[in-house]
Amino acid sequence: MAGPLRRRLPLLPLLPLLLLAAGGLRAAERSGGSSSAMEELATEKEAEESHRQDSVSLLTFILLLTLTILTIWLFKHRRVRFLHETGLAMIYGLIVGVILRYGTPSTSGHDKPFSCSQEDRPFTTLLVNVSGKFFEYTLKGEISPGKIHNVEQNDMLRKVTFDPEVFFNILLPPIIFHAGYSLKKRHFFRNLGSILAYAFLGTAVSCFIIGNLMYGVVKLMKLVGQLSDKFYYTDCLLFGAIISATDPVTVLAIFNELHADVDLYALLFGESVLNDAVAIVLSSSIVAYQPTGENTHAFDAAAFFKSVGVFLGIFSGSFMMGAVTGVVTALVTKFTKLHCFPLLETALFFLMSWSTFLLAEACGFTGVVAVLFCGITQAHYTYNNLSVESRSRTKQLFEVLHFLAENFIFSYMGLALFTFQKHIFSPVFIIGAFVAIFLGRAAHIYPLSFLLNLGRRHKISWSFQHMMMFSGLRGAMAFALAIRDTATYSHQMMFSTTLLIVFFTVWIVGGGTTPMLSWLNIRVGDHVPSVEEMSESHWLYFRVGVDPDQDPPPTNDSFQVLQGDGQDSARRNRTKQESAWLFRLWYSFDHNYLKPILTHSGPPLTTTLPSWCGLIARCLTSPQVYDNQEQLREEDSDFILNDGDLTVTYGDTTITANGSSGPHTATTNLDSRRTKSSSEEALEHDLGAADHEVTSRGTRLVFPLEYNA
Amino acid sequence: MAGPLRRRLPLLPLLPLLLLAAGGLRAAERSGGSSSAMEELATEKEAEESHRQDSVSLLTFILLLTLTILTIWLFKHRRVRFLHETGLAMIYGLIVGVILRYGTPSTSGHDKPFSCSQEDRPFTTLLVNVSGKFFEYTLKGEISPGKIHNVEQNDMLRKVTFDPEVFFNILLPPIIFHAGYSLKKRHFFRNLGSILAYAFLGTAVSCFIIGNLMYGVVKLMKLVGQLSDKFYYTDCLLFGAIISATDPVTVLAIFNELHADVDLYALLFGESVLNDAVAIVLSSSIVAYQPTGENTHAFDAAAFFKSVGVFLGIFSGSFMMGAVTGVVTALVTKFTKLHCFPLLETALFFLMSWSTFLLAEACGFTGVVAVLFCGITQAHYTYNNLSVESRSRTKQLFEVLHFLAENFIFSYMGLALFTFQKHIFSPVFIIGAFVAIFLGRAAHIYPLSFLLNLGRRHKISWSFQHMMMFSGLRGAMAFALAIRDTATYSHQMMFSTTLLIVFFTVWIVGGGTTPMLSWLNIRVGDHVPSVEEMSESHWLYFRVGVDPDQDPPPTNDSFQVLQGDGQDSARRNRTKQESAWLFRLWYSFDHNYLKPILTHSGPPLTTTLPSWCGLIARCLTSPQVYDNQEQLREEDSDFILNDGDLTVTYGDTTITANGSSGPHTATTNLDSRRTKSSSEEALEHDLGAADHEVTSRGTRLVFPLEYNA
Repeated sequence: MAGPLRRRLPLLPLLPLLLLAAGGLRAAERSGGSSSAMEELATEKEAEESHRQDSVSLLTFILLLTLTILTIWLFKHRRVRFLHETGLAMIYGLIVGVILRYGTPSTSGHDKPFSCSQEDRPFTTLLVNVSGKFFEYTLKGEISPGKIHNVEQNDMLRKVTFDPEVFFNILLPPIIFHAGYSLKKRHFFRNLGSILAYAFLGTAVSCFIIGNLMYGVVKLMKLVGQLSDKFYYTDCLLFGAIISATDPVTVLAIFNELHADVDLYALLFGESVLNDAVAIVLSSSIVAYQPTGENTHAFDAAAFFKSVGVFLGIFSGSFMMGAVTGVVTALVTKFTKLHCFPLLETALFFLMSWSTFLLAEACGFTGVVAVLFCGITQAHYTYNNLSVESRSRTKQLFEVLHFLAENFIFSYMGLALFTFQKHIFSPVFIIGAFVAIFLGRAAHIYPLSFLLNLGRRHKISWSFQHMMMFSGLRGAMAFALAIRDTATYSHQMMFSTTLLIVFFTVWIVGGGTTPMLSWLNIRVGDHVPSVEEMSESHWLYFRVGVDPDQDPPPTNDSFQVLQGDGQDSARRNRTKQESAWLFRLWYSFDHNYLKPILTHSGPPLTTTLPSWCGLIARCLTSPQVYDNQEQLREEDSDFILNDGDLTVTYGDTTITANGSSGPHTATTNLDSRRTKSSSEEALEHDLGAADHEVTSRGTRLVFPLEYNA
Repeated sequence: MAGPLRRRLPLLPLLPLLLLAAGGLRAAERSGGSSSAMEELATEKEAEESHRQDSVSLLTFILLLTLTILTIWLFKHRRVRFLHETGLAMIYGLIVGVILRYGTPSTSGHDKPFSCSQEDRPFTTLLVNVSGKFFEYTLKGEISPGKIHNVEQNDMLRKVTFDPEVFFNILLPPIIFHAGYSLKKRHFFRNLGSILAYAFLGTAVSCFIIGNLMYGVVKLMKLVGQLSDKFYYTDCLLFGAIISATDPVTVLAIFNELHADVDLYALLFGESVLNDAVAIVLSSSIVAYQPTGENTHAFDAAAFFKSVGVFLGIFSGSFMMGAVTGVVTALVTKFTKLHCFPLLETALFFLMSWSTFLLAEACGFTGVVAVLFCGITQAHYTYNNLSVESRSRTKQLFEVLHFLAENFIFSYMGLALFTFQKHIFSPVFIIGAFVAIFLGRAAHIYPLSFLLNLGRRHKISWSFQHMMMFSGLRGAMAFALAIRDTATYSHQMMFSTTLLIVFFTVWIVGGGTTPMLSWLNIRVGDHVPSVEEMSESHWLYFRVGVDPDQDPPPTNDSFQVLQGDGQDSARRNRTKQESAWLFRLWYSFDHNYLKPILTHSGPPLTTTLPSWCGLIARCLTSPQVYDNQEQLREEDSDFILNDGDLTVTYGDTTITANGSSGPHTATTNLDSRRTKSSSEEALEHDLGAADHEVTSRGTRLVFPLEYNA
């Protein structure tokens, strides 16, 4: 958070008390001190007042969040599902916004425009000489001439208005990182092709359709005289990009709770995570082409291809930044014994992940996109090298940050509806936008699904398509993109419309998810353990020595923290064929080379690399890989899980303090000679393993029973 | 962190790529766009450059911290104890400071003082009309006329210079909160009288002695012509207050590692935590009295007593704020079932703790002090109501924040020695200051210890006194207080001197702790388990179902997370007499009323409150208190801990998921009729319980064997 920074003042917190307790003092001052001392006191008083208002405004948000948390608890406690926490945060924000707007006196701005001839562009810093004293001012931004008198309308309203860049630089990164870090990777990679298609092609299609439809709406508005200022074609396209970032946080929360279909979950989550990144870069590319001249309402092929080039450049650059930082973290955690000191390890992990953002920004790429790919890399590689404690620490740390940031953004949205002072609500534009996003989503989901189904063995069913269509709600990312630039008339109208779309979709879609799921006959898990049951079973696990937070076979290449999807053993035999060639290619490369280099798992590099790389292979392969193989032969202890309805023998999976043994190393051990086929078999095993799962606390333990038999 | 906030700009991250990839575009712009578009582009380019430099400077700090973490690991790995992590962070900071200072070109400032007649006091916001466009500027602060040309000397140096208030409002709160939250409470309360005496009386004595000695030094400097500007008596006193805040972080880290005497640890830690709070309020009180006139070099009795009044007002106000927020959090966590949702619980805990700071600042008290007492209250009450997961989550969250903030401050200190542009190093003043802090510490420790020993049964030995004298190093708090105001000549000199004192004490004292301990024959734990051993025993605990992170009998009134102190069974019989009357009084009140009201533990209020409060008592007493009593009779299972040299029967303490049973409830159950004596017995039990302890992973489990017999 930007935090309440006091302006000057070591004595500021003292002043009010001073004024109360030592009121008689001021007379002495007045006689003793010069008039400049008086002025200084006045300035300090003002600065102190400003600091206090900063504190109060932040306090408002904290109380809002506290209230939201307590109500969420009540809702969860009573199993209320029609309103998600984010919807709730918005409602509370709305209420506080109304109070601030109509409840606080409108103080008149004491800052008149201060006209002074300066050179022809503004400095970033101003030094102003006020009766012999020099004061430093920093540039905050340009204000359009018409709005000058609105700027200082209400001190309190101004105080609760954050710099839009706070969202991009402080609040979004933890949300996006957490999304990447908690990506359910196995299902994500299994559906990689479809997810990429939805995210890239889909978002582009959606952006262009919405942009063009909105341009029609704008033309219509001009025709009927509803539009009072300029609204270019690029503005429409920008609106398309902004509003194409879907954020089905509400839907996914309900999916999680109901244990809905995992593939659907993976498709929705993967699409929304990636299309956020696509939308950011897309909107940047569009903005970059705004000043190209006055012919912005015509389609310009050259500009279009340049835009595509810029898009690809920024996207791949950010991707590289994120991946490289993740890989560096993985290497550092692999080759040091940092895992003996979980605090150091967690701190390093946090710092490296943060540095991705700064590095990308410093290089001119997009920090938020880099952070996303860094999160995915960290989860895929670094996570395996961390100590058990650091794993839960990092997960929990980013979970808390994500939760706070997300709810903050949503309550700010509620607040902004009333406290933002430049709203332009145009009914025609708003209705047009709703129609456009509906059509845009439809034109994105159905044709793409049809095309994808041509190539997919495991088709995306109609009910899934309808559910994806329905789940296209807009959230934090659309808001952050829209609030980023509200300088012009068109952007203000876009911002107001985006806000309404977010409200509408979060409330309606969030509340309608459960009915929609049952209406579409989408399979949900039959056993939804209550929280009490969860904490009980958690306790049982504790007793028998299996920590449910620990992913049972960490060597097993994917997280295995899968949710839902308990009944798909019928589909089991199809899994191998289903996985796309893209996935197989990637899997084989990842499993044979990347995993062994970056983590303590996978087959030894000495077996996968050509023989002339022998020395390098031996250096890079962790000694633990060989150890694991030894260890596995000795350990054959079985743990009995005795959890009510679950009585399952816990395969040959033993968990040690550093969690580095599992059935999978057995595979690689047995297959160490058959280098070429090992990854294929491991993949098969990996995909087959999903069937024998025990649900507990939303975490699944994977028991490769059949593999042992 | 204040974060890099981009000034304007949706297209900023794009610009560099644009300039590379679409270089030909600019000609088109030039012809198509007006000159205002050019200007806009120039401004945006400047803003983007500024944002990029922000990113780079933050990145510098992050890389510094990363480097520090890796080196710390290396040092810990090789058991190097002569240099603490904070000392290391300073060294790295120094190196980077030298590079920045002498390695980067000194760009001349492009901002000339901009003289304009304004009304007689500066506005907080300026609107400047630059050739028809309006720009908003915010007041940053006053600049002394002589320094105008230094302000913009070097862009990079300016970028790495943080607003001093960042330290007070963002970095100190997590450090101080963590100190309060991790206070080892049993030993802290056992030595409460001594700690309060050292913290309040001691700091005041130290402040006045240092202040007066420094005033002598200043007079001497004036005499020999070493002083070129004003230096008042109040400035000297302020220096005394700033430099009286001890921060034995290095010493305590080594104590922790060596399992040194717990009482000494409690004395040192308690004193340093509280004297930080005292020093802040003291310096505020002193600053508040600076403008009282020109006779500041004489002692003014009226001003002195007023100052004492202000001091007490702010201190008690901040204390109340912290305690009230802590109590509210305890009540919320007690009366809701929030503990079923650890994420919500952790978020609430975090928000409430943060709101303390803002609330205190908004009310004009000192946020940092409020946060300290909030931390102590949270640890004492709220912690007991949290779920097992939230306990470790909150502890780990604040541990990470504390670690990052502390190392950031220390590396910033190293950096500031070279990048701060207004240093005034005066050899006479510096030597005088070293002598003064030595004498001030001596005049504080020895006489006070003598007085305290008159009342203490368990005397503070000479070796302890010498160790306390030696451990009086200065750290983050002194730095934050000194950098807060560097506007005048005297404050700049004070800042430079403080910086040197921090460097010297952290390096010398930090390195000398281990030799000093052995030279003074201070008992250290004989068994220092290595991290590997710890994680192994951790694993064993895990298997038998006892989580070492969980404090075994949470109903047992104090944390019981004690470190070191395994050999004091000889002292056992004295413990009861040793505890001061202040402690007994507080303990009895806390145990009989506060604990039952605020937590799920303690005796039922129905037995401790007078009978006419029956209804209220029944409402406030948690049903779990009765449950616990029932439960205890049924459960009598023994866990066998089989940890190498430790084979101890684990008393009658059973740990359940919400951790709310223990031997102590048995006590209150048996004694429920004998209302008056129950707290006395509980206390006795509590103090006696310290003897049967099993060391494991730095955590002690308390087995009240004798009590059962």
